[in-house]
Amino acid sequence: MSSSATAFAPASVGNIGVGFDLLGHAIAGPRDVATVRRIDEPLVRIEAIRGDIAGVETLPLEAARNTAGGALIALRERQALPYGFALELDKGIPLGSGLGGSAASCVAALVAANALLDAPLSREALYDFALDGEAISSGSRHGDNVAPMLLGGVALATATRALRIDAPDWLHAVVVHPDQVLETRRSRAVLAEPYPLHALVEQSAHLAQFLLGLQRGDAALLRDGLHDVLVEPRRAPLIPGFAQVKAAALDLGALGASISGGGPSAFAWFDSRAAAERAAPAMRQGFVDAGFEARAYVTPVNAPCAEVIAT
Amino acid sequence: MSSSATAFAPASVGNIGVGFDLLGHAIAGPRDVATVRRIDEPLVRIEAIRGDIAGVETLPLEAARNTAGGALIALRERQALPYGFALELDKGIPLGSGLGGSAASCVAALVAANALLDAPLSREALYDFALDGEAISSGSRHGDNVAPMLLGGVALATATRALRIDAPDWLHAVVVHPDQVLETRRSRAVLAEPYPLHALVEQSAHLAQFLLGLQRGDAALLRDGLHDVLVEPRRAPLIPGFAQVKAAALDLGALGASISGGGPSAFAWFDSRAAAERAAPAMRQGFVDAGFEARAYVTPVNAPCAEVIAT
Repeated sequence: MSSSATAFAPASVGNIGVGFDLLGHAIAGPRDVATVRRIDEPLVRIEAIRGDIAGVETLPLEAARNTAGGALIALRERQALPYGFALELDKGIPLGSGLGGSAASCVAALVAANALLDAPLSREALYDFALDGEAISSGSRHGDNVAPMLLGGVALATATRALRIDAPDWLHAVVVHPDQVLETRRSRAVLAEPYPLHALVEQSAHLAQFLLGLQRGDAALLRDGLHDVLVEPRRAPLIPGFAQVKAAALDLGALGASISGGGPSAFAWFDSRAAAERAAPAMRQGFVDAGFEARAYVTPVNAPCAEVIAT
Repeated sequence: MSSSATAFAPASVGNIGVGFDLLGHAIAGPRDVATVRRIDEPLVRIEAIRGDIAGVETLPLEAARNTAGGALIALRERQALPYGFALELDKGIPLGSGLGGSAASCVAALVAANALLDAPLSREALYDFALDGEAISSGSRHGDNVAPMLLGGVALATATRALRIDAPDWLHAVVVHPDQVLETRRSRAVLAEPYPLHALVEQSAHLAQFLLGLQRGDAALLRDGLHDVLVEPRRAPLIPGFAQVKAAALDLGALGASISGGGPSAFAWFDSRAAAERAAPAMRQGFVDAGFEARAYVTPVNAPCAEVIAT
């Protein structure tokens, strides 16, 4: 048994439009990396947070206030471990991007620490600790980022359950991250006003068609399903350029497009990698035309989950 | 080609708790029967509405105001048929029960008339005409009753699409109809007040688990999914005895229980026919104890669709 393990966790698209706080999928692209050592002291210590991303110096080194530290504390305490963990984080996912940066640190740390347990837990069992970590940074136990990071591909994340949902391998996403800041708090505040029944029925119809579309590998069902009438209309005005990015995606054959997590990143799904690659530059240009630098990623929707990369 | 056809359509459970206006399943039990004749006059005429159910004499004989008549008018006009239809209805589903009585008349008439077309349409193609008929009695084009009647089993009904959803054959339902009247208008009025985001997320989680539970034949997922937090809490107080019926079902192992359609009928799902049969008398007793006569039906969830029974 090695006393040190390094794991990565991928970024993820949160919500996937129709599954607010419930659905997400992994991204093959940006990632966070965590190196965890077993230590004799019965505590969790963060030794370093590095990374070539803006604001990395603002992340708390105090374990109980850090999303990855908090998850390891929960793991130690609820598993009654007699030893502790020392943690180093290498951040690759931009902060406040809507791509699950805090979730990825948390999942990478858990997957690395899990490899050091005498009896490692299943990915499903790690989910509960990941929710503890996520709650530290976001204030709520929503698992739509941590679940796909733990399981890969598309995942359903409820309060008690992380479930991988099979998706066809031809599905690809373009994810575009603009260099703009949208505060999570502000992004949540616009959602407070309650919703009329007809919008709820419409969204439920979309969610059902989305899930059946995944199950059947039916692009027409996915096209009708991947359409958010609840959250996106309220958040889109907070994201300059989003409307253009979405229009570019749909013009180029996207099955649907929406905001990733709390934004400002945008994503679109396509029925092939080639279609996604054709659309990526035009989607990126939507943000550039609005005055923002932006990066586009093309990824299979069935992107890999977090894994140990060194012990 | 016979010039007359008789078809039945089953009753159905509307909404199935988590799919308001969107999900329904057929019931093997009460049914409506329609006999349709091709006539030379280019019109739709209702010649008789019979049946041993309360209020049958209140149903409109004027075709354009009758749910079955309206569906046949839509079929004639949009298919540009040079002939007309004469229709007789034998009603078996109690009016105002929440078991889709008007939808069943409409579907039985369409399925019978379709058998008389020179080129009969698919069940999916009949859906649009059925929505026209349903709108006459309910005021809105919701298809959660007509879709399962047309397709059998569980169906998803959107504005444009009726889709059968595979369900495991072991699933059985108990449906209990109490002899009480709950006006559709009143049953809808309580839903007008808008809904908070957290309730919506919770309901979406239930819907997703419900659909994945059907897909995987996973009783635990169905148990977590079959739970309505939006509509049932507002409607249940309008149905004396419902709380007792639901409690009886859950006590006896139901996967979930809720209101069928706009009520007052209640239903519960079980993981076997034996479990459903054990629970049916106790569920019925819940309404009896509240002072109402009641009838209980045990049915497979994969109940048969409407069919022609004589030509």
